[in-house]
Amino acid sequence: MLLFLTRPIILNFQLSIFNFLTVEPFELYILGCGSANPTQRHLPACQVLSTRGKLFMVDCGEGTQTRFARMGLSIQRVGHIFISHAHADHSLGLPGLICTMSLLGRTSQLHIHGPRELEAYLQTSMQTFCPEPDFQVLFHPVDTARHQLIFEDRSIEVWSLPLRHRVPCCGYLFREKPGLPHIRREMIDMYEIPVSQINNIKAGQDWTLPDGTVVPNSRLVTPPSPTRSYAYCSDTAPLPSLVSQIEGVDLLFHEATYYKDDELRARQTFHSTSVEAAQTALNARVGRLCIGHYSARIKDEQQLLREAQAVFPNTILADEGLHLSI
Amino acid sequence: MLLFLTRPIILNFQLSIFNFLTVEPFELYILGCGSANPTQRHLPACQVLSTRGKLFMVDCGEGTQTRFARMGLSIQRVGHIFISHAHADHSLGLPGLICTMSLLGRTSQLHIHGPRELEAYLQTSMQTFCPEPDFQVLFHPVDTARHQLIFEDRSIEVWSLPLRHRVPCCGYLFREKPGLPHIRREMIDMYEIPVSQINNIKAGQDWTLPDGTVVPNSRLVTPPSPTRSYAYCSDTAPLPSLVSQIEGVDLLFHEATYYKDDELRARQTFHSTSVEAAQTALNARVGRLCIGHYSARIKDEQQLLREAQAVFPNTILADEGLHLSI
Repeated sequence: MLLFLTRPIILNFQLSIFNFLTVEPFELYILGCGSANPTQRHLPACQVLSTRGKLFMVDCGEGTQTRFARMGLSIQRVGHIFISHAHADHSLGLPGLICTMSLLGRTSQLHIHGPRELEAYLQTSMQTFCPEPDFQVLFHPVDTARHQLIFEDRSIEVWSLPLRHRVPCCGYLFREKPGLPHIRREMIDMYEIPVSQINNIKAGQDWTLPDGTVVPNSRLVTPPSPTRSYAYCSDTAPLPSLVSQIEGVDLLFHEATYYKDDELRARQTFHSTSVEAAQTALNARVGRLCIGHYSARIKDEQQLLREAQAVFPNTILADEGLHLSI
Repeated sequence: MLLFLTRPIILNFQLSIFNFLTVEPFELYILGCGSANPTQRHLPACQVLSTRGKLFMVDCGEGTQTRFARMGLSIQRVGHIFISHAHADHSLGLPGLICTMSLLGRTSQLHIHGPRELEAYLQTSMQTFCPEPDFQVLFHPVDTARHQLIFEDRSIEVWSLPLRHRVPCCGYLFREKPGLPHIRREMIDMYEIPVSQINNIKAGQDWTLPDGTVVPNSRLVTPPSPTRSYAYCSDTAPLPSLVSQIEGVDLLFHEATYYKDDELRARQTFHSTSVEAAQTALNARVGRLCIGHYSARIKDEQQLLREAQAVFPNTILADEGLHLSI
């Protein structure tokens, strides 16, 4: 039995070293896309971006923890949570999520990024309900007025996107870092290049044959996969400065709380209409637009979609359970 | 049109004065009956007792506000909320509920009764998410170690029930006050007693006929409806002192977090098994027992039910959406 188990593990290890032309997942899950006033149709804001085995959560509305399992996701794989602003429909799921992580025996750190207005609430919630978890919860205040790099690891960068709302608020831009080139396996086999040299070749080195012939690196690799990007922009009134910050992203989630005819109400509440979301997508030349954060007044989401598509055709509607590959 | 509207209103007024033999509703709604570790089957603790147009909420787990509308209930009719203890699965729905009450334009006071451990959490949550509501939220700390009257109005009394849990915790006993006797309409008609005298007769007065004959009060009224009572006991290890406090209640909700064979775990976590809940119901000679607060380990609730019914046959299982007339 052990042999059967061992062999695939070795194979996987070799595959990972070689970095053949396989595409890592970069996937978005919508767990909630309603707004503050609860309806029977939608849940408060929460999204999860999944890439390379890691889950990044964006906003955490009430009841988020119960929706994780329904989406086939594990809350313990969430390492970083990014909260846009300290409104109830974007934040109230945090204490329950943390308590359940603790109940389920989590030991790894949890990082929460968000406006500093959230800090006292988080502290008091934990003191009350989860005073001694077996893992650290680290709060990183985000300056919502600045567009800056707030987190990076080996494969991804996360940038804040200042938004214009009734309270300090920012969106988040997730951008993959450029990867290494892909090894051309047939070349490796032909020149009998040992595994120990693969990392050097991915790093750009040529290969010298026993007869002294130099095989240029460009014959041994193909270019790295294109990087992918996702921008989350909720809640906000239209904001011209946002356009250059999200220019060319593959997928943009932009709130569209109201129909286009409700522009006055959108201005009063610092939200956007369907058409304003689509105009931002058009101006920023994004690949695809997903709209959501529906007001309880929205009875016909198809109308919202038609209004947005008239400006930016590649628009879809967010919905609970929606799963998008980027 | 005005006439059509006016006539039924006068009739209703008269009916209410006469207090004929109609039974006021005294109804329990189960909104959530799971425990701390979320499952796909149950939601965290919340119940609502409805009587005479008023809603009394007991515990308020995460997501409570979204379940209200599904049960056909209005959150604005909740005047008093009673929280058993400061554990996440019993309290995390409060901030969202309060924010939504505010969004929907509430102006009437909201009273929250519960252990003082909750106060800082409530304060900070409101400062963060709902700093200036148009209504007062009044927190009334409950001494969970004492069995005492903590609220009463014209028709109901609410008593605290000390429980034995890992943190300060109490249940709540709701008991109707004795009503006034019911007027025998045929006697009123026969003796031509004017409406102005009805309240005196309900208060116990006899009636004197023009010829001086005294009609004794007992001929003019029938006894008041029997009072009804409901006791909520969650979370708790078995506690002998509870029995006398809930003696004879019409309906007892008692937690039954574990199967009878999980007694050791029940002791470690200060919870009860199915059989312990049923034994309490039997000892207290209650009318009916409803069990819930199911551990995520409970895969077969029918087994839990069978175990309890073997001790106390008139037992039912709690479930989300269950609606019981008491």
